[in-house]
Amino acid sequence: MFEAPYLLFLGDAPDALAAKMAQGIYDWRPEAVAGQYRMEGCGADLKIKDLSIKEAVAAGAKTLVVGVVNRGGIISDSWMSILVEALEAGMDVASGLHTLLRDQPELVAAAEANGRTLHDVRIPTVKYPIATGKKRTGKRCLAVGTDCSVGKMYTTLAMDREMKKRGLKSTFRATGQTGILIEGNGVPLDAVIADFMAGSIEYLTPSNDADHWDFIEGQGSLFHASYSGVTMALVHGGQPDALVLCHEPTRKTMRGLPDYTLPSLEQLRDLALPIARVVNPDCKVVACSINTQHLSEDEALAYLAEVEAKLGVPAVDPFRQGAGRLVEALD
Amino acid sequence: MFEAPYLLFLGDAPDALAAKMAQGIYDWRPEAVAGQYRMEGCGADLKIKDLSIKEAVAAGAKTLVVGVVNRGGIISDSWMSILVEALEAGMDVASGLHTLLRDQPELVAAAEANGRTLHDVRIPTVKYPIATGKKRTGKRCLAVGTDCSVGKMYTTLAMDREMKKRGLKSTFRATGQTGILIEGNGVPLDAVIADFMAGSIEYLTPSNDADHWDFIEGQGSLFHASYSGVTMALVHGGQPDALVLCHEPTRKTMRGLPDYTLPSLEQLRDLALPIARVVNPDCKVVACSINTQHLSEDEALAYLAEVEAKLGVPAVDPFRQGAGRLVEALD
Repeated sequence: MFEAPYLLFLGDAPDALAAKMAQGIYDWRPEAVAGQYRMEGCGADLKIKDLSIKEAVAAGAKTLVVGVVNRGGIISDSWMSILVEALEAGMDVASGLHTLLRDQPELVAAAEANGRTLHDVRIPTVKYPIATGKKRTGKRCLAVGTDCSVGKMYTTLAMDREMKKRGLKSTFRATGQTGILIEGNGVPLDAVIADFMAGSIEYLTPSNDADHWDFIEGQGSLFHASYSGVTMALVHGGQPDALVLCHEPTRKTMRGLPDYTLPSLEQLRDLALPIARVVNPDCKVVACSINTQHLSEDEALAYLAEVEAKLGVPAVDPFRQGAGRLVEALD
Repeated sequence: MFEAPYLLFLGDAPDALAAKMAQGIYDWRPEAVAGQYRMEGCGADLKIKDLSIKEAVAAGAKTLVVGVVNRGGIISDSWMSILVEALEAGMDVASGLHTLLRDQPELVAAAEANGRTLHDVRIPTVKYPIATGKKRTGKRCLAVGTDCSVGKMYTTLAMDREMKKRGLKSTFRATGQTGILIEGNGVPLDAVIADFMAGSIEYLTPSNDADHWDFIEGQGSLFHASYSGVTMALVHGGQPDALVLCHEPTRKTMRGLPDYTLPSLEQLRDLALPIARVVNPDCKVVACSINTQHLSEDEALAYLAEVEAKLGVPAVDPFRQGAGRLVEALD
């Protein structure tokens, strides 16, 4: 989709959270990153080489990737001159922001004048088919969550990395902008037209070797009033053989929905499994992936043991413990 | 959205099925229809006044509505001169076809030259919000089906009409192109961007009088691999108080999915109800609406009695029996 190496643009990110996207790219594809660009007053730091636009080009950077979000997902005026400078210096620009690069006349003009490309990864560039529900060869694992932002992407990236480390056949299948920026391709599912959602996921996870696993990045939650339709399409389009249930145990209410509490992992299993079995009768819940970042080590281990006893499948925090047991649960 | 009275354009429909959309509009809004336009060799006939473009304008027709579909949903060349004639004579043109009026340079030119409007009801014209999941006042009834095209639109239209006949407060809420053409407004849900599906349904069914019922047209099926995400968004965005389960008992496989059989009404209830209760804990299945068109009267009555015994709620074919018992089941 777009070329490495990248210059990660952190802009004027007030803190590390605002540069989460850049951090994600660096964590999972360090080999693709040439360095970071931070504006004066930037409060985020990936602890990698700071490069000017000129230095980045000299270091071989091909694409400036906007790795920062701000309120409203807009492209602030203060960024504009730097992005234009990058285009003029010969880099492409990629972004997952809601505001599109292609809607900025200054950027369009600079890209045209310099023969460069603007990559808006949030917008589908493929005409996806209607889903057929046909059985494909190869295996698929999907992360489903009790809520949005509980670690579904992290879980599938960690499982994919662990599979590759073990010399097993595996692909991470990105369905959101950060995942796409990390993997270099994928389906921006939240921007796909309703009728083509499931078809876009069939397209993303085609037939493959019998012993190959796709690790499909989850989106939303079947229990999230705003985005459940997206999740549903992911389950039916992905036709998973294995589900990994993702949860953040200290979260009080659903993300963006203060009136809603989170379902339990049992409730998630009991809803997700019959839905998945509509398209794949052999689908199983193989493991739970728990984001224990807000628990102490002792609390985390106790909680994981509790979940494991209740659900009868391995419960793991891949960030603390690695994804080994998650991958072994696929057998 | 667009102005009545309509001239229903049947074009060169080879048979009645191809003019199903025109038939639907005439069945449900006869008062809005000035007459029909049939080309030479047209095999469909609504048994209403045949009008030329001139006669239609003289009769006060404001909008020519394309009420025919052909293979691929395209606008055939043979229709073009008639649509241009209508625009030149002072009518607007409305269509629910996949191929857009606005993508036809001839039509765009004729509309501009004559100050007329092209209405593509398949395309959203509103920037819908993200769903909030907030409780709204008023009541909502949603039709959910074991499959696509089992009578969900018919059921909600019939219930809305019956409510109005009884002097009760009611609105039909269209979510597909035929429904929108009938009601004059609605949300073309299958064309909405994934992230905004549930929000578009919240927008369509806002807070209302405590004794007012919205009858929300269903789409797809929670069991349909291609479109289940659309249905999911409808359930969570619609926040229904009442579900009516729709079924066609002679259908062997899911529409467009020859590898899939239909679920039972019990399976539909057991999946739809927990999903609906995520957003409305008081939601109930109030009735079954059965499309018995392929059964004899005796077979139909026997089947309905069987369903009623099994599901414990009224089972009705509103086409044969009217929607009275469906409406009474709302109490």
